Order: sequence, then C-alpha cells, then structure tokens
Amino acid sequence: MRNCIIAQSGGPTVAINASLAGLLDANANRSYFGRCYGALNGITGILDDRLLDLSRIMSKTPDFTDRLIHTPAMYLGSCRYKLPDPDSEEGERICKRIFLLFQKYDIDSFFYIGGNDSMDTVLKLSRFAEKNRSSVKILGIPKTIDNDLAHTDHTPGFGSAAKYIATSLREIACDAYIYAVKSVTIVEIMGRDAGWLTAASVLARTDSSPAPQLIYLPEVPFDLAACVRDTKSLLERENNIIIAVSEGIRDAQGNYLSANQAVRDKFGHAQLSGTGKALETVMRDQLHVKTRSIELNVLQRAAAHCASETDLTESHDQGAYALTASMEGKSGQMMTIHRIEGTSYQTRIASSPIDQIANKVRSVPLAWINDAGNDVRQEMIDYLAPLISGQPSLFYKNGLPDYLDLSHLRG
Amino acid sequence: MRNCIIAQSGGPTVAINASLAGLLDANANRSYFGRCYGALNGITGILDDRLLDLSRIMSKTPDFTDRLIHTPAMYLGSCRYKLPDPDSEEGERICKRIFLLFQKYDIDSFFYIGGNDSMDTVLKLSRFAEKNRSSVKILGIPKTIDNDLAHTDHTPGFGSAAKYIATSLREIACDAYIYAVKSVTIVEIMGRDAGWLTAASVLARTDSSPAPQLIYLPEVPFDLAACVRDTKSLLERENNIIIAVSEGIRDAQGNYLSANQAVRDKFGHAQLSGTGKALETVMRDQLHVKTRSIELNVLQRAAAHCASETDLTESHDQGAYALTASMEGKSGQMMTIHRIEGTSYQTRIASSPIDQIANKVRSVPLAWINDAGNDVRQEMIDYLAPLISGQPSLFYKNGLPDYLDLSHLRG
Repeated sequence: MRNCIIAQSGGPTVAINASLAGLLDANANRSYFGRCYGALNGITGILDDRLLDLSRIMSKTPDFTDRLIHTPAMYLGSCRYKLPDPDSEEGERICKRIFLLFQKYDIDSFFYIGGNDSMDTVLKLSRFAEKNRSSVKILGIPKTIDNDLAHTDHTPGFGSAAKYIATSLREIACDAYIYAVKSVTIVEIMGRDAGWLTAASVLARTDSSPAPQLIYLPEVPFDLAACVRDTKSLLERENNIIIAVSEGIRDAQGNYLSANQAVRDKFGHAQLSGTGKALETVMRDQLHVKTRSIELNVLQRAAAHCASETDLTESHDQGAYALTASMEGKSGQMMTIHRIEGTSYQTRIASSPIDQIANKVRSVPLAWINDAGNDVRQEMIDYLAPLISGQPSLFYKNGLPDYLDLSHLRG
Repeated sequence: MRNCIIAQSGGPTVAINASLAGLLDANANRSYFGRCYGALNGITGILDDRLLDLSRIMSKTPDFTDRLIHTPAMYLGSCRYKLPDPDSEEGERICKRIFLLFQKYDIDSFFYIGGNDSMDTVLKLSRFAEKNRSSVKILGIPKTIDNDLAHTDHTPGFGSAAKYIATSLREIACDAYIYAVKSVTIVEIMGRDAGWLTAASVLARTDSSPAPQLIYLPEVPFDLAACVRDTKSLLERENNIIIAVSEGIRDAQGNYLSANQAVRDKFGHAQLSGTGKALETVMRDQLHVKTRSIELNVLQRAAAHCASETDLTESHDQGAYALTASMEGKSGQMMTIHRIEGTSYQTRIASSPIDQIANKVRSVPLAWINDAGNDVRQEMIDYLAPLISGQPSLFYKNGLPDYLDLSHLRG
C-alpha cells in the first residue's frame, strides 16, 4: 500500500479540520493508503520535510477524528506561500523538490485543503505532475469562510462563519435595543471581494427585529452619501439602526472607505482594516447620535463553539469523497458540493477540474442584491438559510470547549 | 394582594433576564404579588409611567420565563439615569413622583436589577422611603459583568462573560498558532476599574496551550516598557504570544494607555477605547513582528449563546430570593451570593444592607496578581473556575438562538 500526504493552507475556518477528519475516517474504513502523513504549515512542511504520521496519532488518540471535527483552525498549521510558476526556473526547482519528497515517502496522492491561493498550488502541482509523467495524484479540498470558490454551491467553513455572524448580529441587536436613545451600530465583517459573509448578517432578522437594517456588500459600489441618508431616514422611524458592512466596500471609483489604511499582502490582495471605524466617524459627525463600530475580527473564522453542524458534516463528507476521487484515479480536481433542486435542502458531492476553479472568484450575483445596493433579496436568504442549521456536540471540559492539543505548531 | 414593579438598569448582561424570570417564577409559585409590573428603561419608565404587565405577558406567552432566562440584554430595557440626591430639591421632587406612581399601582415592593449605579438608586429610594415612612420595600438584585459589587462573592452576568472571554481567547489562540511566524495578538477586554473579566482569560489556558501568556489588570500600574520587554523575551521561546489586557490599564501616574481617547460619561467614569490598538502600535514599532489587536466589544456582555449555566441558575435563584426577602419585610437590601467553604463549589443566597454596597467597588485582591503584575495567581483560577461551568439549553430556530421579542423596546 502506498501513502498520502495531506496539508492545509490559507486562513483558518472552523471546518477545515472536519475535512481532514473525513479523509482519515474514510481511509480507516477503506484501507486505501498505508499511512496518512500530514505536512506541517502547508506546502512549506513538504519543502522542509516536516511531516506528522497522522495514522499513528489517530491510533493513539481516543476520539481523534471526532475531536478533530470540532477543533478550529488548522491541526496541521498553515502557510501563506505562493508557489512560483513551475515553468520558471525557480518553480521547476521547487516542484522537483516536492516530488522528490513524494518519492521518498512513497506518496500516491497529495491532498491540499485550502482556499483560492491553495487551489492555485493544486493547479501548478498537477500540471507539473502531468508534464513530468508523475503518477502522484494532486487533489484539492476546498475551505474558505469567504465562500468565493467557483464550481461549488458553497465552501466548507462558510456555513459556520455565517452562523457566527448571524448569531452575533442578533445578540448585538438585543444589546442595542435596550436604551431609549437613537443609536447607530456598524458591524464590520470579513470579505475582501466577496460579500457572502456580510450577506449572512441578514439571517439575524426576525419577525420582530429588523436588524441589520442596512447591508453593504463589496459587489456594488458603496455610496457614502446615500448610506448616511438612508440611515438618517431609518432613524426617523426607529431608535436603533444596525449596519452590516463588508471590510471591502469601495466607492464607484474603486476607493476603499479606509483607503489610507490599505496595504497589500504577498498575493497582492489589499489588507483592510478600519472600514467600520471610518464609517462610524462619518455617521457620528453627520447624524449626531450615539455611534459605535464593532469588528467581528478573527472570531468569525475561529469560533468553533458556534459552528454549523451542516457545515461540519459536509466538510467531513468532502474530505471522505477526496479518498474516493483518488481511488478512482482522479488528479487535478477540487471537491465540490451541489444543491439538488427540490423543496428541501439536499446536496451531492462531486469534483471539478482545478483549472476551471483556481484563480477565479465567485462573487455574490448582482441579482441577489437590491437596487439601492443596501440590502439583499429573498434569493440570498433562501440560499443561506440551510447552511447554518444544526448545533454540533462539542467536547467540553471545565465549562470550556476542549480542543485538540496544537502544541506541535507552537515552534 | 398588592403588586410589585421590577426594572433593569445599567449595561447589559446575558443573565439579567434570568433574575427577572426567577422573581416571576417565585411569585407564580407563592402568589405573593397580585401583579408584577415591569418598568421600561429602568427608573425612567417609572417617571414616565411606561409599565408592562408582566403577569399578563407571562400567562399569554408559552415558556415565557424559560425563554427569558436565555434572552440576552434587558427584556425591560435600560437607562443611564442618575437619581439626584433625595435631600436636594430636585431629588425630593423626583422621588415624590416615583412614590406617587407606586401608590397609583398599589405597589408593595420595587425591585431594581442592576450594577453599581443602580444600587445607588436603591440606596436613595430606600432612604427616601424610610424618611417619608413609606411602606414600599426597595430591593436590589445585582447584575454586572464587571463583578465589582461589594458584599457578594460574584455577580450575575459575570460567569457568562467570563466563559465567553475564555472561550474566545482559546479560539483566538488556535487561530494564532497556525502560522510558523512570530506574532503578537492583543485582546482588549472590558473592565474600567476592576480586572475580573480580564483575569478570566486565564481559564483559556490548557496543559498544551499557554495563551494568554501575559495578563494585565487595572488594579496594578501598567509598565509599558516591562510589557514590551516581557513580550520580547517570550517571543524568543515561542512563536505566538497572546496578551489579555483590560481596557482600563493605567501607568503609575494614572494615565491611560489611550489617554487621548478617554472621555467621561454622565457618572463621571472614563469611557475608554483603543487600549488594545494603542498597545498594538507600540508592539509593532518596537518588536517588528506580526501584530494585531482584537476588541471583544459588546459580545462579552451579550453572547447568550455562550452563557454559563451556573451563572443563569444563580441569577434565577437570586431573583427568586428577592421575593423571599420582600415577604420577610426586608427593604434597602441587595441580594448576595456566598461560597460555602469546602471542597466542592456550593453557594447560599442572602442579602446585605444597601448602604454597605452602593458606591463601593470590589477590585481584584492584589494578592491574586503576581509580583510582576503580568499574570494572576492560582487563587484567581480557583475562584473563577466554577463560575463558568455548564452549557445552557438554548431555544434554537432555523439554526439560530431564538430570543424573546424585544420590539416593545424599539421606540
């Protein structure tokens, strides 16, 4: 029996370990790989030969995969490493080094669990394998709270982040309603280019609670004057206005609200902060009411205590399906999930060629955003609602979630 | 049968409605009051005669008190109203108006659920009642996430906030460990003068996770240079340092880290923001590592989805005990909770004269803070641990906590 390597990359989600668990559980059932190795810190762990023997850890740790499902962030650690083009001299040298390690450990398949940048790595490695007639299969398993991968209905990690955002917005609304004074609360939500996460705030609404009354996604130009006008008009009818705003909103000229604070990361993406704070300042100056801003920050991607059971189950299933894909001889593919049309929510898992997915961004359809650009339509609510359902049974100890030991990552 | 009025005041907690439920449940069992009225927005609802007939709502709403227990913030709304001294002309006029309303509704007892400022109101009203030979009993039921009320082991709302803080810190730690690069994460926690909430971050630690490695409370002077030095020294041993810092930390001269942002509220308390952000800037400038700050913000007082069952139960019990106190003819008292000395955690509820409680602040004992002023001692851990235990069974609907309708507060 040959072996496999699994690695995780990109930003954390609370479901990325569920996919790892799904793959390990499937292999325990079907005994396809002799050993499952985990590379530490993504592709860099392969370059540095830093591997964990996951099969051994699994056999020694009670409830290992069950606890893995409920542990946030990456059990194997992550990296932000951009693989150079394999056609470049440097890229070829690095790819050769990776495939030498695959040879050393008798690797049949390499599974990379990650988002857009990780799928770029899957694309490059699978092209290199093809070009060099390597038999190693390269497969991608998606995860990203941003929900912006193409060719899949939604991505692992998104449903749980959506649930945390909607739960928090609902609780922030309770907090805002208690004082009989006019107030504006701005909640800044992650999502550089895709508004899926911010859109999820709509689920906080109930028959008796309209918050968030305004929702701004990065897919449509942000009109600051209209936002102030809409808020003012709402304040005439009710005391407490809550505004959900994506960190990535830009005006018609493409300028970020907090443009002077934008810097770029290694992949060339703008790193934003302070959108909520910037809007808070404008609102306070122009509306003269109590104003505050709240940044949901990393908890929207790390709050495993508030995960969606549907998300964890589907993430586990996609990890398990990756084993099937490998057994079927597939390579250069990413696992995908598809909604079966019908009255109730049902899905099926498949896979799609990575070159149709990598380096593409799936934005919110403009038809799901209202004409004024300050709310989402019913189609979005129907799409989001099933993804947050179910509360997982966490392991608790002394009143706190008992997550797996991550000390192997602490350096 | 005579009636009672209940009101809530101050900042929200997730347990303040549990005390209201406890009082209503006790009265349903013992039929002492004919009607329980709720004044909207604290004492201002009494001044404006805005009352809810809680007995009627309770009889008409299925599971009303059970759902109340699990609904965050104030079902009756809040206010930030400082009652003038009843010995002043204005104070006397306002107190007379309050007691006229008590007469109108045939009130036997007034229960005020709140923190330090609300207990000041209880003190003033009970003195006015005594001086004017009114038979209306004035009783205080504590709540404050700050845990800073005197004469009680801890306050309703604190245990749940502590649980949310410890849970979030543990999840932030998972999020921080994944990258193999040096990083400093600063988590800003509420607590203007008392460090109880920030101290609760210590519960996030496990045998395999030391975060937060540094904890700074407002009870001891904050030494910025020592903090930078300690962080630098820790970074030599491990990659990811998490620092829990109270919003209220001050240097030896009493200056806030974010002094230029401090403004004062109506009670003369400094309103702080930006302590974490200020420390983030200093750390980035001096240590040249990845640095970020996270403000836990209002969710630490509103996240009912992460409440402590122990806290909710004790809050309910203190509400119920307030009925007993009234039946025993007590007035000018606040309910208190006391730990019964022994091996396991057991408590008893009592009450104490309000003049020994109002306008006093119970800080963290200096003996529970280490000599370096950057951590807490085992005594603190032993004190905190039982307060966060147990996970409540929330009402869920469509994947989200189903809180009570608060539309009567929306103006």
